[in-house]
Amino acid sequence: MTDSAPIAIFDSGIGGLTVLAALQARLPRERFVYLGDTARLPYGTKSTETVTRYTLRAAQVLSSFAPKLLVVACNTASAAALPELGRSLAVPVLGVIEPGARTAVRATRGRVGVIGTESTIASGAYPRALRALRPSLEILLQPCPLFVPLAEEGWFDHPVTREVARIYLEPLVSAGIDTLVLGCTHYPLLATAIRAVVGEGVTLVDSAQAVAEDVAVQVRSPAGAGGGEGSARILVTDAAPRFLRLARFILGDRVASLEAVDLPA
Amino acid sequence: MTDSAPIAIFDSGIGGLTVLAALQARLPRERFVYLGDTARLPYGTKSTETVTRYTLRAAQVLSSFAPKLLVVACNTASAAALPELGRSLAVPVLGVIEPGARTAVRATRGRVGVIGTESTIASGAYPRALRALRPSLEILLQPCPLFVPLAEEGWFDHPVTREVARIYLEPLVSAGIDTLVLGCTHYPLLATAIRAVVGEGVTLVDSAQAVAEDVAVQVRSPAGAGGGEGSARILVTDAAPRFLRLARFILGDRVASLEAVDLPA
Repeated sequence: MTDSAPIAIFDSGIGGLTVLAALQARLPRERFVYLGDTARLPYGTKSTETVTRYTLRAAQVLSSFAPKLLVVACNTASAAALPELGRSLAVPVLGVIEPGARTAVRATRGRVGVIGTESTIASGAYPRALRALRPSLEILLQPCPLFVPLAEEGWFDHPVTREVARIYLEPLVSAGIDTLVLGCTHYPLLATAIRAVVGEGVTLVDSAQAVAEDVAVQVRSPAGAGGGEGSARILVTDAAPRFLRLARFILGDRVASLEAVDLPA
Repeated sequence: MTDSAPIAIFDSGIGGLTVLAALQARLPRERFVYLGDTARLPYGTKSTETVTRYTLRAAQVLSSFAPKLLVVACNTASAAALPELGRSLAVPVLGVIEPGARTAVRATRGRVGVIGTESTIASGAYPRALRALRPSLEILLQPCPLFVPLAEEGWFDHPVTREVARIYLEPLVSAGIDTLVLGCTHYPLLATAIRAVVGEGVTLVDSAQAVAEDVAVQVRSPAGAGGGEGSARILVTDAAPRFLRLARFILGDRVASLEAVDLPA
């Protein structure tokens, strides 16, 4: 591992650019290489076996950049494939679930809601990570399958999005959660609509910030270090126009284009 | 081609079972083998290149069953890959767009709306097929990206689905369409919500019926023929529980399970 080696980031699609943005803000001189598996997204509705297979293939492609660290930005892939990735890769691997759980435990007074894709919620990864840190926590889980399509449609704070958020989140609000983990990289894009339903008294946990702090520790790179000018390559397995649109929404117009790559099956 | 050879049906996922259901009703003694690429769905948000590559791989897998005919039930795959499929396969190939266009032209008084995925609408395949049959038609196009996730969520006639339908379809209603092509296999599942927005005066065209008639002609098989007892195998590339749920909603509880298969990249 060298200082100038890049930090690799994997996501099922474009949502993980919220994690890249947090990392770039925290570590502006690092080089990043991001891979979004846009040809096969979403992962959140698919089985653990399929998600694990796709994630391993993507990690192999990212390994060819000789990164010093691999960040799995996708909650679904973190929940399904992190142990397997740790076994099969030489490079250190960091997921988003443990950092998110840590932030939630610091924030909560005892009752935590977790929202995510069907697959992330079904995996039980968040309750495991949360209870490992504080066994007495009360935890309420809610899959939100329509949030990713709504975010990808660009309906970030649309009346329909607020109504869907009300349907998904009102049971958690009624149960008195004080903290809500946004367990999918797309969900911070819907923060305004989510906030409108849960009210000001609930802390929203976006694991992107927590991950950025963890990465800074792991690469032993104080803010400003990294040995370079800072750069990011964004690779995708499908470069349809909607993905570039969403990338520009998250990172701004400095995203000139997305580089298309193929993955093995 | 033998009478007892199966009819193969390809779809990006589960929605194409609406086509299988229409075929089984029309040709109850035929054998069917259905392949849904649930591991890589949806196709409708992805590029023509990716959709074509996936469709060709799936068609190769289905060819191993020595079918007498391949029906591409997915509108997106039909729009993207039909010419390429015709060139690369020995078996006759039938898509859903031409039969749907034919039904629409028979029904319309001159102003046709077409709804579909982003990819299907962007391809221009429906206007081409419609104008080839009647050049003077007025055609209004509308992509409806949230309809597939809403159908897969099971919100077939949910208030949110009606509101989304209103947003997508009101411009077409205002423009005075008299016929609306449901250009995606999932959309018939939302017919009640769509009907509530467009009113009784608009004819809804579900290409599944038109395809079933075309297949009956192509296999020269009068209703009741087919040389067998009638059967259907349903293969999927990812067998997550939500896909079985949706399959049972479309075909009923006689769907005991979905068979998982792998596709090459």
